[in-house]
Amino acid sequence: MIDNPPPWPNGARCAVAFSFDVDADSVVHASHGAAAIDMPHALAHMRYDPFVATPRLARLFGEHQVPITCFVPGWVAETYPAAVEAILRHGANELGNHGHFHEWPSKQTVEQERESLERGTEALMRLSGVRPRGYRAPYYGLSASTYDLLIEMGFAYDSSLFADDVPILLDNGKGRLVELPVPASVDDYNQYVSSRAFDYLMKISAPAQALEVYRAEFDALWEFGGLWVSVWHPAVSGRPAQALAIRNLVEHMQARGDVWFATLGQITDHINGLVATGAWQPRVERVPFYTTPVIGNKP
Amino acid sequence: MIDNPPPWPNGARCAVAFSFDVDADSVVHASHGAAAIDMPHALAHMRYDPFVATPRLARLFGEHQVPITCFVPGWVAETYPAAVEAILRHGANELGNHGHFHEWPSKQTVEQERESLERGTEALMRLSGVRPRGYRAPYYGLSASTYDLLIEMGFAYDSSLFADDVPILLDNGKGRLVELPVPASVDDYNQYVSSRAFDYLMKISAPAQALEVYRAEFDALWEFGGLWVSVWHPAVSGRPAQALAIRNLVEHMQARGDVWFATLGQITDHINGLVATGAWQPRVERVPFYTTPVIGNKP
Amino acid sequence: MIDNPPPWPNGARCAVAFSFDVDADSVVHASHGAAAIDMPHALAHMRYDPFVATPRLARLFGEHQVPITCFVPGWVAETYPAAVEAILRHGANELGNHGHFHEWPSKQTVEQERESLERGTEALMRLSGVRPRGYRAPYYGLSASTYDLLIEMGFAYDSSLFADDVPILLDNGKGRLVELPVPASVDDYNQYVSSRAFDYLMKISAPAQALEVYRAEFDALWEFGGLWVSVWHPAVSGRPAQALAIRNLVEHMQARGDVWFATLGQITDHINGLVATGAWQPRVERVPFYTTPVIGNKP
Amino acid sequence: MIDNPPPWPNGARCAVAFSFDVDADSVVHASHGAAAIDMPHALAHMRYDPFVATPRLARLFGEHQVPITCFVPGWVAETYPAAVEAILRHGANELGNHGHFHEWPSKQTVEQERESLERGTEALMRLSGVRPRGYRAPYYGLSASTYDLLIEMGFAYDSSLFADDVPILLDNGKGRLVELPVPASVDDYNQYVSSRAFDYLMKISAPAQALEVYRAEFDALWEFGGLWVSVWHPAVSGRPAQALAIRNLVEHMQARGDVWFATLGQITDHINGLVATGAWQPRVERVPFYTTPVIGNKP
Repeated sequence: MIDNPPPWPNGARCAVAFSFDVDADSVVHASHGAAAIDMPHALAHMRYDPFVATPRLARLFGEHQVPITCFVPGWVAETYPAAVEAILRHGANELGNHGHFHEWPSKQTVEQERESLERGTEALMRLSGVRPRGYRAPYYGLSASTYDLLIEMGFAYDSSLFADDVPILLDNGKGRLVELPVPASVDDYNQYVSSRAFDYLMKISAPAQALEVYRAEFDALWEFGGLWVSVWHPAVSGRPAQALAIRNLVEHMQARGDVWFATLGQITDHINGLVATGAWQPRVERVPFYTTPVIGNKP
Repeated sequence: MIDNPPPWPNGARCAVAFSFDVDADSVVHASHGAAAIDMPHALAHMRYDPFVATPRLARLFGEHQVPITCFVPGWVAETYPAAVEAILRHGANELGNHGHFHEWPSKQTVEQERESLERGTEALMRLSGVRPRGYRAPYYGLSASTYDLLIEMGFAYDSSLFADDVPILLDNGKGRLVELPVPASVDDYNQYVSSRAFDYLMKISAPAQALEVYRAEFDALWEFGGLWVSVWHPAVSGRPAQALAIRNLVEHMQARGDVWFATLGQITDHINGLVATGAWQPRVERVPFYTTPVIGNKP
Repeated sequence: MIDNPPPWPNGARCAVAFSFDVDADSVVHASHGAAAIDMPHALAHMRYDPFVATPRLARLFGEHQVPITCFVPGWVAETYPAAVEAILRHGANELGNHGHFHEWPSKQTVEQERESLERGTEALMRLSGVRPRGYRAPYYGLSASTYDLLIEMGFAYDSSLFADDVPILLDNGKGRLVELPVPASVDDYNQYVSSRAFDYLMKISAPAQALEVYRAEFDALWEFGGLWVSVWHPAVSGRPAQALAIRNLVEHMQARGDVWFATLGQITDHINGLVATGAWQPRVERVPFYTTPVIGNKP
Repeated sequence: MIDNPPPWPNGARCAVAFSFDVDADSVVHASHGAAAIDMPHALAHMRYDPFVATPRLARLFGEHQVPITCFVPGWVAETYPAAVEAILRHGANELGNHGHFHEWPSKQTVEQERESLERGTEALMRLSGVRPRGYRAPYYGLSASTYDLLIEMGFAYDSSLFADDVPILLDNGKGRLVELPVPASVDDYNQYVSSRAFDYLMKISAPAQALEVYRAEFDALWEFGGLWVSVWHPAVSGRPAQALAIRNLVEHMQARGDVWFATLGQITDHINGLVATGAWQPRVERVPFYTTPVIGNKP
């Protein structure tokens, strides 16, 4: 099904990256501003992330020797350093830039967006000593300027798009970035979240049923040689029953075998290596996709 | 998975509290004000609660010797005293404060919120002779002042937050409160309610499927030693097919064994006892979570 | 589970009434007014009802010798007389009042509501020669005046409320009405409809899964002696796969046995007979539920 | 169940048409106008369609020797000609008119709608050399004028309505059109899409569960002799796991046998042949359905 799958290390059938958006309550403040402090229920729901869920998930993946990639807004890292330390302590895990306050990039000016990226990077560097090499847009809310900024600032990869089943390159004419795309359906909000505060009202899935969606994507990408990047939110999926379901999924993958478990940074390095040697040629997309409107006014 | 589970009485694996928000039609009046009287369909839907469902559920749990905790708004207790009497007659059940008219706390001034709490307490005392020791916020809609009020008024516990998998303490600098958290997914509205009047439109689950969500949470908390507090609304889950499913769940738990079925007040006493003797140290959170905005204006 | 189930004829375990809201495209006009004629897609979707689905369902139930109760707005009967004739031809079926244009009663003045009821009755009488004895409110949208009007106009029953698991009586001080309540979850819109035109966006169920909801309600009411009134819309549930699922449900009921299949009018007569002889005493509710607001202003 | 099924070629039990709305990112521009260029996430999601999904699906169906019908907006064909070439290369596939920019017809003036139809046709002719004979309204958003325009412009068929289970004829007094109706539930958006950008928030299905809906419709139409027209969007259903599920569905149909797999144009020709010889008489609907409002003002 996949036209041009990359060769994966050691003859693996596919690459698997578990990625976590460690938002904590940043998302409540980013969505509601000053009104957020009058929303203790939503705040407690999301503070479960750094206090309980992220350490639990870090330990779970560490025990299974599966590295994870965590996108942590700068403010979250500064406010909950112990959660970040748990991520770093339990394995060869990676931190990625996820803005500073989880601001919606396309609602910012270019200068505001640049500042959020810089503050996010600085906070992660202070805690980990390492400059984050990758980015995921808060709310998947990329602006038309995001890729220019990421390339200018030297980021190695982005992982925000439902753009392909294998890595692609994004080229803005001045530089390139590896894009590590996400399957459109593997986000835990649309399985587990029913909350007026998050403007998300829907039937909640039992964990076994929710994980069928993730597993179906994995089974297909394993069969055809693709890249499986899953997106999880610890406050949502790090609860006991949901974490158990993740453990079952990891064990399903390990039992199947021939899977390369990697961080997004490791996958980026592998892809860059293939491109440098000419061993594999990814699809290249020019960004931004459009510089002038296709339809001038909203019809 | 759970870092520091408390010891439960008699070596039980976990604690289980079935809690019911006995809202009756208070929620229609609270949401729609004077317009509510022109909504007979919504009113009848919710009056099913005191007239049919609450007595049924009280009897069902009484027969299974499982105590329940019922959060009853004061106005509901005054309007439907027979339902409250059924709760008290069928077992060692507990009444909790749920406001007076099921008003949304964060939409009230501090004085209005205090008055709702006082009127709710007075109504429950008049019927039961017992001062309610616990609270659940109507709509889960806690204000920034709620915990200050609860501590000032001497409440022993709250059960409104998705904050942890075990009890925690909330400390406002003047006093403390036991928080008995609820798993984020075990609320029956997101399985069974599809109603324009309640601004809730979604696919309705068959009871067997809905209960898989509750059961998965229980199975995980049983395995890891947590606290399972489930939230039900009699008008929603006290119908014959849904009540049968609850009965099946109770029997599943009883068959598994090593479960401590308790009211939230009993669990609070147990936790306070552990803290007093130093046998177990819960996590403590300072409330309110924030006193100044993290982000000043809504972005 | 059911406190006081009525005795059903011939020792049946429960009573079953399949009821259909034969709305055709009235609902498009009622919801969108003059704009409806510019919505051919929604109109065609609903015209499937009288042209294809209602005759199919009437035949299907006729073949299984199960009578049905069809609530038909007056305008629908006038516009699609062949559909009404199919209902009357295929069995001892009953027509019920469903307003004239499927207007939302609580959005009408009392005089407008009276006129809709009268026009609806006249249209059904012209076609069938029989005055409809029962009513279901369009959109379940009862007004505070509906029951006064129904009692004044001599209706024998209503079937709009999720008020109980067995028939009850509604009393306005001047007269009484039998209420034949509907389980809260057995409406096909929340299983099968995903349409912007109807302001209903949700995941669509496979028929086998949707029917689990209806079947679970039946199984429980059969066990405990209740009344099962199901609500279907031919444009939604009269399509081939959905009609097949209904056939399977009917055959499940027939295989189980001891079921009294009846129209709502027959059930009303049975209840009135029990009341007259004192053989069974239903619960009585005073209507309207409220004459003054519980909470004066919308909070 | 189906009153008057047409005879299908070679004694087939039913006719099956897989149809694809190859929207690419036209739908983002059509819905958001100039703001679309600041939505890279939504654009990338939909550009997956021409770059990855449409070629994959064309090849998949080609390998199974099942022809497909693709509705392609003119702008999409001009912007992504390689995707259209893939459709034409992999089998006896057909292109249908889907407007030019995927504009919502009922929000256009008649002249704007005519222009969209003409530009859509011209673009497809330039690429394929063939004038499209069929139409599906973007967003299913037919205007009251659409059928007059289609008949005036010589279109042979439309496939936008949930109007019947077999082909019907639409007659405007000046000419006729074959309508090839779609079952109401077989659209992949309501199974797989959860996206704020598309104003579609719902629980996402695992592919095996989503396909149960399509398969139930097929099984019923196969049993009763109907027409199964399924609607898919490559960006949604052309991903590896979802495409695998489609492959399983095709193989289920082929294993069952006696299925006529055809393009919508081939089905139109077959129906016109039956009508011409008098071998079968379809139902005829007069269009537009209404020329004056049924209810004058929005109630």
